[in-house]
Amino acid sequence: MENTEQIKEFGGTLNRYVHKSKSCNCDMTFSIYLPPQAEKAPVPALYYLSGLTCTDDNVRTKAGAQRYAAEHGLALIMPDTSPRGDDVADEPDRYDLGKGAGFYVNATAEPWAAHYQMYDYINSELPELVEATAPVIPGLRSITGHSMGGHGALISALKQPGVFRSVSAFSPICNPVNCAWGEGCFGAYLGDNRDEWQNWDASVLISRGASCPPMLVDQGTADSFLADQLNTQTLIDTCDAHNISAKIRMQNGYDHSYHFIASFIGEHIAFHAKALNS
Amino acid sequence: MENTEQIKEFGGTLNRYVHKSKSCNCDMTFSIYLPPQAEKAPVPALYYLSGLTCTDDNVRTKAGAQRYAAEHGLALIMPDTSPRGDDVADEPDRYDLGKGAGFYVNATAEPWAAHYQMYDYINSELPELVEATAPVIPGLRSITGHSMGGHGALISALKQPGVFRSVSAFSPICNPVNCAWGEGCFGAYLGDNRDEWQNWDASVLISRGASCPPMLVDQGTADSFLADQLNTQTLIDTCDAHNISAKIRMQNGYDHSYHFIASFIGEHIAFHAKALNS
Repeated sequence: MENTEQIKEFGGTLNRYVHKSKSCNCDMTFSIYLPPQAEKAPVPALYYLSGLTCTDDNVRTKAGAQRYAAEHGLALIMPDTSPRGDDVADEPDRYDLGKGAGFYVNATAEPWAAHYQMYDYINSELPELVEATAPVIPGLRSITGHSMGGHGALISALKQPGVFRSVSAFSPICNPVNCAWGEGCFGAYLGDNRDEWQNWDASVLISRGASCPPMLVDQGTADSFLADQLNTQTLIDTCDAHNISAKIRMQNGYDHSYHFIASFIGEHIAFHAKALNS
Repeated sequence: MENTEQIKEFGGTLNRYVHKSKSCNCDMTFSIYLPPQAEKAPVPALYYLSGLTCTDDNVRTKAGAQRYAAEHGLALIMPDTSPRGDDVADEPDRYDLGKGAGFYVNATAEPWAAHYQMYDYINSELPELVEATAPVIPGLRSITGHSMGGHGALISALKQPGVFRSVSAFSPICNPVNCAWGEGCFGAYLGDNRDEWQNWDASVLISRGASCPPMLVDQGTADSFLADQLNTQTLIDTCDAHNISAKIRMQNGYDHSYHFIASFIGEHIAFHAKALNS
């Protein structure tokens, strides 16, 4: 694992690492922000999964999250959104399939299966690596994300009861089996068997009885993807029907951008800090 | 003036405008963040001048300033760093001359003089336009900036006694007549007469007795441009020699990036809010 960048920020350090990933079978890049508190003792970790087209850089540059991580003493773990490299399958003309669009599933269909194992990367390989090398408290994790990454955060929490203390999401893709983004990626990565898709859909997992840690979701009402891709109402209805006490907030006038995320990430980090420190 | 973008953020609105600039003789783009307080009554304005290669977008995306502007009830005015357009002189192979590098002076030498009138644009045309059209309190202004923009903020305050309530800067070019960036741009825009250059240099203006509103400067010690371009010590020494009570802070381990700006912009905005509200 190579530490390719160290930047001082809010009294802590923003690090970038490149490492050979077994899950994804390629070099992967991720960033960790370590708050000042981590110099004295290990701290809890909040994973942030990014959306379509992003790398680890978008959130660390645009969300304003480090300020709150420093305030609450949390490490931020910011992975990439797909495998990378010349050997990795891609659809270069599409922003919503292939590189930058890993969708946080384990691909089973060719040519994707060789590298697109993002679920295992995010939920097994990366936390093991981080907990073995960074000053974080092993096992004390929460997760959040944006759009495709909000979907990733939700399914990660729902598929692994007890692993995360809390989960949150900004503008998540709530029911990917029923939207073009999800159908495109699931069809490619998982093949034509729609039954298999159901295992990677937050709303379906809840409807099948998955348990959930404390959940906070923010969704802008002026989000141009709300009507066609995000299916927020399906998540609201499914949580209601299955007595999941999620806090799902429709935020009036906000869009899908990092300006929206920046506006509410302080509340999300405070929410996770409360769960991680209780 | 065309309002090309409106984005809700921290309860206020981030607006982008395009307008025909008389000073620069081309279309110019700028952004204004209006805090929620501006819906009820006009608010004071903080101008932010950006550094080399930037547009209005860098600061609004990366600095995390809007959060504090909303907290303190200030409008943020974020102009571009040079004239733009196909007709505008440029040195496309250089990042530090021409487009993106206006240096906040009024050019007198050809081919630059036709468009590069950034000092007049920032200090006359833009505030007149903003005060005539946006809910800001006329005449109640402070100014800040980064690197080339820190230089721009300092000279704008020093050349116009009483106009700004306060001035601050991140990693400013403190003595441009004595660094490669400044010599390159001043030589091109102002010609070979180095006497003329002196009128656009913060350290020289102070040494000649310019008065200054309350001043706050932050400079990272790990800034890769500190040794060759910024001449921070010259500003410190000149302020000392001329009894300017500037607060110039060397911040240990910080670099030249927006991660540095983000770490301290909250303190800068609080500093300006205090001056603007007193």
